[in-house]
Amino acid sequence: MAGAGQYNLHSAPQHVASRFGLDLLERAASKLPLEPARGVVIADYGASQGRNSLLPMSVAIATVRERLAPPTPISMVHTDLPENDFAALFTTLRDDPDSYLRADPAVFSFASGRSFYEQLFPAGSVSLGWSSITVHWLSAPPTAIRRHIFSPLASTNERAAYAARAAEDWTQFLVHRRAELVPGGRLVIVGSGADAGGRSGAEGLLDLANDVLAEMVSDGALAPGVYERMVIPTYYRTREEFIAGLGAASVAEGLELESCSEDALSDPLWSEFQRTGDLDTYARAMSDFTRAFSEPSLFGPVAVRGPLQATADEFYARLTQAIKGRPERAASNWHLVLLSIRKR
Amino acid sequence: MAGAGQYNLHSAPQHVASRFGLDLLERAASKLPLEPARGVVIADYGASQGRNSLLPMSVAIATVRERLAPPTPISMVHTDLPENDFAALFTTLRDDPDSYLRADPAVFSFASGRSFYEQLFPAGSVSLGWSSITVHWLSAPPTAIRRHIFSPLASTNERAAYAARAAEDWTQFLVHRRAELVPGGRLVIVGSGADAGGRSGAEGLLDLANDVLAEMVSDGALAPGVYERMVIPTYYRTREEFIAGLGAASVAEGLELESCSEDALSDPLWSEFQRTGDLDTYARAMSDFTRAFSEPSLFGPVAVRGPLQATADEFYARLTQAIKGRPERAASNWHLVLLSIRKR
Repeated sequence: MAGAGQYNLHSAPQHVASRFGLDLLERAASKLPLEPARGVVIADYGASQGRNSLLPMSVAIATVRERLAPPTPISMVHTDLPENDFAALFTTLRDDPDSYLRADPAVFSFASGRSFYEQLFPAGSVSLGWSSITVHWLSAPPTAIRRHIFSPLASTNERAAYAARAAEDWTQFLVHRRAELVPGGRLVIVGSGADAGGRSGAEGLLDLANDVLAEMVSDGALAPGVYERMVIPTYYRTREEFIAGLGAASVAEGLELESCSEDALSDPLWSEFQRTGDLDTYARAMSDFTRAFSEPSLFGPVAVRGPLQATADEFYARLTQAIKGRPERAASNWHLVLLSIRKR
Repeated sequence: MAGAGQYNLHSAPQHVASRFGLDLLERAASKLPLEPARGVVIADYGASQGRNSLLPMSVAIATVRERLAPPTPISMVHTDLPENDFAALFTTLRDDPDSYLRADPAVFSFASGRSFYEQLFPAGSVSLGWSSITVHWLSAPPTAIRRHIFSPLASTNERAAYAARAAEDWTQFLVHRRAELVPGGRLVIVGSGADAGGRSGAEGLLDLANDVLAEMVSDGALAPGVYERMVIPTYYRTREEFIAGLGAASVAEGLELESCSEDALSDPLWSEFQRTGDLDTYARAMSDFTRAFSEPSLFGPVAVRGPLQATADEFYARLTQAIKGRPERAASNWHLVLLSIRKR
C-alpha cells in the first residue's frame, strides 16, 4: 500500500466494501464466548493505515460491550506487513473523530507488523478476527504475467499458477487463524472475490491501466523488460474456491463455515460521477484509487524506486487521461464474497 | 526521533547505555511469577526503531525461557509515540540477524503507538517492563527556554518548570505501569539522569549546539522568534528525583524499589576517536547522533518542516564544523540512573 497516509485518502471503494460485512461482524461478535476475567482480543488482519477499520472495529467493540462492561479490557490488534505505514495507523487511532479509542478507555490498541500468512498471535488468544479486502493479496507473485498486470486477465497457464498459489495461501491463512482463535471464536472475511467466471469486476479499469503501460512501452517511456515483470500480486477467488479452503484437512477439523454469501459493490466513484457529472474529479479519483493499491506492486517500494518514480508519475497521469476518454470502462463493480467462520 | 531508520543508525550511545541495564534486567526476569497457562507479556517502553531493543529483549526472553519452555507464548510489545517509525521497527524485527524472532517461534511481537504517559495495556497484564534512555523525554515542554535548547542549561525559573513537569510525568509513568504490571512483575529503567548538581553529562555538546544556533540567529540564517521557541523537551532527574517519584501516594502502595544505582557512560564516539584519531568521522558521527535525537524537537516533524528543512541541514552541517573545532567539548559522559521496581 502507498505510504504517508495515501491509502487512507484514496481507498473509498475498500471503505464501502467493509460496510457489507458489518451485519456479519455484529452477529459474530454477539455469539462469542466471553470470559470477563480474561478480557477479549480482537484482530483486524490487514489494517493498512486504519481508516477503513474504524467503523467495523467500533461495531465489534460496541457489540462485545453489550455483554461485557468496562473495565473488562478489549485489546484491538491491527496487523499488516512490516513495511506498512503504522505511524499513519496510530495517528489515525489517536486523532480521527471516529476512532474507537475516544469512546472506550478500556480498549487498548496494538499493531502486529508481520504477514498474516504466519501465526501472529499466541495459540487460542483471539476471540474475533476481521479481514476486509485483504486476502486477495498473495504472499508473493508465483510467476510473471507477461502481457498484463492483473491475474484475471493473464494467460491460462499464468492464471493456473495464480490459482494454485491462492489456494495455498488461503489454506495457510486459515491454518494460522485456526491456531490463534479461541474455541467458539469467529473470523469474518469480506473478500474481494470473483464471479463463477473468475472476474473480479475491475477488469475494465485494469485493462485500461495495462493499455496505458503498453502504450508507454511502444513510446519508449517504459522498458519492455520492466513492463514484463510488472504485476499486482492478487487473485480473486470464487465462492467455491473460498469454501474449498475450509475443506483442507489441516483446517476442517478446527474451523467450520457458518455462512457464505456474495454481493456486488457498485463503484462509489462512478456513482458520485453520475451524481455530479464532474469527469475531471472522477478520473483523478479513480486514478488515485488505482495508484494507492497498485503503485508499490508495479513500481517497487518508495525507498528503492529511484528513477522509476518519474515513470510512475507519468503512468498515473496518463491513466487519468485514459479514464477521461473511457469513463464507463474504468467503473469497477467489485465482486465480494463474505464469510463467517467459527472455531470449533 | 528521526524517521526512515535514521535513529537506528545514529544511536550508538543509547545502544551502549542499554547494556548497563542488562544484568538488572536478567535478575528481574529470573524472579518473575510465571503462569505457563497464561503466557508472558514483556513491554519495551519507548522502543523507537527497535535496534537498541534487540539485545535486552533477547536477554529477557532467554531468561524467561529457562523457566518456561516453548510453546508457552511470550508476547513482546514495543511501545512508542504514534508518529514513531514503526515500519523500521517491524522490518528490523524481521530482518536483523540479532532479532529475537529468529531464535524462538513462540515469541509474538507487537507495537503500541501511544504515549507511555497513558495506560497502554490492560490492568495486570504485563510481567516485565523495560525502558532504556526514554523517561527523560517529557510529555510536553512546560515552557520555552529562551536562551538555550537544553533544560540543564536553562534559567533558574525555566529549570524549575522543567523539574516540576518531570516530577508529574514520572509519577504518571509509574501510576500507569503500576496498573499494567502483574503482582510480582518487574519494571527495569535505564534512565538518562543527572548528577547531584543536575548535570546530564552532555552539557558541552548541547552548549556547542546552542552556540551554533545563536550564530545562525546573528547571521540572519535563523529567525530569533524561531530560535526562542526551540527546545529539546527533556529533563535529567537526579537519583533523588527518581526515588522521590516512588514515594507518591498513588504509586507507593503498588510499587516498591528493589534497587537503584548510578553509572557513567563514557562516550563511545569519543573512545572510537581516541582509538582512530579520525576527527572527520568523529565530528560527523557526533553531529548525526545529535540530529537523530534532536531534529524533530528543534525543527518539527518532517511532514510539516517545510523551509525549516534547509535550516536544519545548515544547522547540523555547522554543528559538525563546530565539533571539529572543539572535539573534546562535544564528548558526552551521560549520567545513568538504573532502577529495578517491583509490583507489590
